[in-house]
Amino acid sequence: MNPGEFCTVPLNAPDKILLAHGGGGRLSQQLMERIFLPAFANPKLEAHHDGAILEIDGKRLAFTTDSFVVHPLFFPGGDIGTLAVNGTVNDLAMCGARPLFLSAGFIIEEGFAETDLSRAVASMRAAAAEAKVEIVTGDTKVVDKGKGDGLFINTAGIGVIEHSQIIAPSNVRAGDAVLLSGDLGRHGIAIMAVREGLSFESTIESDCAPLWSMIESLLKTCANIHCMRDLTRGGLASALNEIAQASRTQIGIDESAIPVSDDVRGACEILGLDPLYVANEGRFICILPASDAESALAVLHKHPLGIDARLIGHVTGGEPGLVTVKTPLGTQRILDMLSGEQLPRIC
Amino acid sequence: MNPGEFCTVPLNAPDKILLAHGGGGRLSQQLMERIFLPAFANPKLEAHHDGAILEIDGKRLAFTTDSFVVHPLFFPGGDIGTLAVNGTVNDLAMCGARPLFLSAGFIIEEGFAETDLSRAVASMRAAAAEAKVEIVTGDTKVVDKGKGDGLFINTAGIGVIEHSQIIAPSNVRAGDAVLLSGDLGRHGIAIMAVREGLSFESTIESDCAPLWSMIESLLKTCANIHCMRDLTRGGLASALNEIAQASRTQIGIDESAIPVSDDVRGACEILGLDPLYVANEGRFICILPASDAESALAVLHKHPLGIDARLIGHVTGGEPGLVTVKTPLGTQRILDMLSGEQLPRIC
Repeated sequence: MNPGEFCTVPLNAPDKILLAHGGGGRLSQQLMERIFLPAFANPKLEAHHDGAILEIDGKRLAFTTDSFVVHPLFFPGGDIGTLAVNGTVNDLAMCGARPLFLSAGFIIEEGFAETDLSRAVASMRAAAAEAKVEIVTGDTKVVDKGKGDGLFINTAGIGVIEHSQIIAPSNVRAGDAVLLSGDLGRHGIAIMAVREGLSFESTIESDCAPLWSMIESLLKTCANIHCMRDLTRGGLASALNEIAQASRTQIGIDESAIPVSDDVRGACEILGLDPLYVANEGRFICILPASDAESALAVLHKHPLGIDARLIGHVTGGEPGLVTVKTPLGTQRILDMLSGEQLPRIC
Repeated sequence: MNPGEFCTVPLNAPDKILLAHGGGGRLSQQLMERIFLPAFANPKLEAHHDGAILEIDGKRLAFTTDSFVVHPLFFPGGDIGTLAVNGTVNDLAMCGARPLFLSAGFIIEEGFAETDLSRAVASMRAAAAEAKVEIVTGDTKVVDKGKGDGLFINTAGIGVIEHSQIIAPSNVRAGDAVLLSGDLGRHGIAIMAVREGLSFESTIESDCAPLWSMIESLLKTCANIHCMRDLTRGGLASALNEIAQASRTQIGIDESAIPVSDDVRGACEILGLDPLYVANEGRFICILPASDAESALAVLHKHPLGIDARLIGHVTGGEPGLVTVKTPLGTQRILDMLSGEQLPRIC
């Protein structure tokens, strides 16, 4: 078990889906490997990327989807509508694609307040305008009272790849640098604070934001980006583990290089959570040759969302799939995947 | 109220989402016009089509999404997995697009049996193979027990338009013929029979099927198709009403020309349902110049799914938005949209 992890259901229930199967950790990965990958076997899905890269008549497109089941629906710094747009916009951006078009599928529980639906939809509209994407097609389903939880939103997105870089976990190499775009943990803690009725000196707001404009600048300067990943469910730790496994490399990071605000750090201590596992909705890592790290950081620092960007570690050829952290005390620890569920229904 | 319609919640509850808001009838339309269209205003969404037509670097693509919340998950002739693939494949086909790629988003209730998930996923795999589409990207979320209903699946799809026809409701003209591809009501009645524990002489199976191969043949022969629409939620009646409204035309159909199997007709009588409002998952209407009707029917009759295709009516310049039916007794009746919910959670 990882520090701060809690389980709401027994992990050994046979043949039953657990909350942790949706948590982005080890059980999510096992479900993917046991059920989805064998059934839908194709190289696009097996790339373990945030989206699929498609080629249609020589044009490279990215295609991705996410369902949003966040609880509560409204929280400081955003709501399910903001998340539903930015989440998919960011997955396209992580593929190096300019986000263009979104679909929106609503599953509404009977009895849900129409004013709350309008509020979430208005947030989607504002987020789409900010991210310069169009919501072009949609669907609405209503399920009986007690068979849903107010509102679930699915978005899928199409983006266009306007450069020739191959950005994918499999492209990560020993010697690469790992850059982090900003401080960690604000989205997860904002949700958790509302859910648990905690209050802090100042309100901790979700970092939910669209990342494409920053990625666009990065792509113009850096011609050799190996991989990007936004740090949602499972946080930095899960992203690094997935990439280390997919690229069969070892990744080592330096905990003291990772920015975490005092508020978030305090909340994590109270809640027994490790900020490296907490979800973010406006943070990403970029992995690229160490020789390009400085110029990439200079680009990130010029963007309002990248002011706190840092070099946090390196890729090595050591033990394939292993992620290690140098603690502030100078010791090393293994940064494993979550085996259960740290924060359910965070996005 | 339409014949056979029932409401599970009061239709006058203020500011609350009702099951009927997801039923594909008048309340669905009002929700669309009140909340979604104003927020996401753009010509692609306002086309009232089964999908959006996008242009990326001069290439025309179709993009569509649907969430599937059918209850029960497994039924004669298909299951939620079959529906989730064919539903989106058919929406792309209705745009005249060759379906290429699907995304799949799973929202699973904690405690759902993994064997049932595997079964639904295997059905998706088989349906995707039959429809020649690839499932290339996906997402899994798990919600707490009691906050979902086993399994919801969202699919979004991308198709490519390989011809220059403009197929859209706005393109329908007075003088056009209305063709129906086969008998009505099997999907809705198959679901309803399981749900209500009814049994008939033979099992009524859903008509769930992928329509693209038939549409592809049609596009090769008919250079002037004005509109196509698959007859899902709300059935033939809702599809005709939506098209009459979007094209500001009147549509008149002949009830005696509409094939309904004896089993389905009998079940409809027992349940008090009108087959014209019952959902189908493998039937569509094609609206095109009357002079092309015969050649189009000849194409449909050659396809296993189009053997029972018929000319069922015509478009006229009469009262914009009105749909009329000539009954077998020779009288005329207005075929209105459903104002409530006939069969909830049918897809």
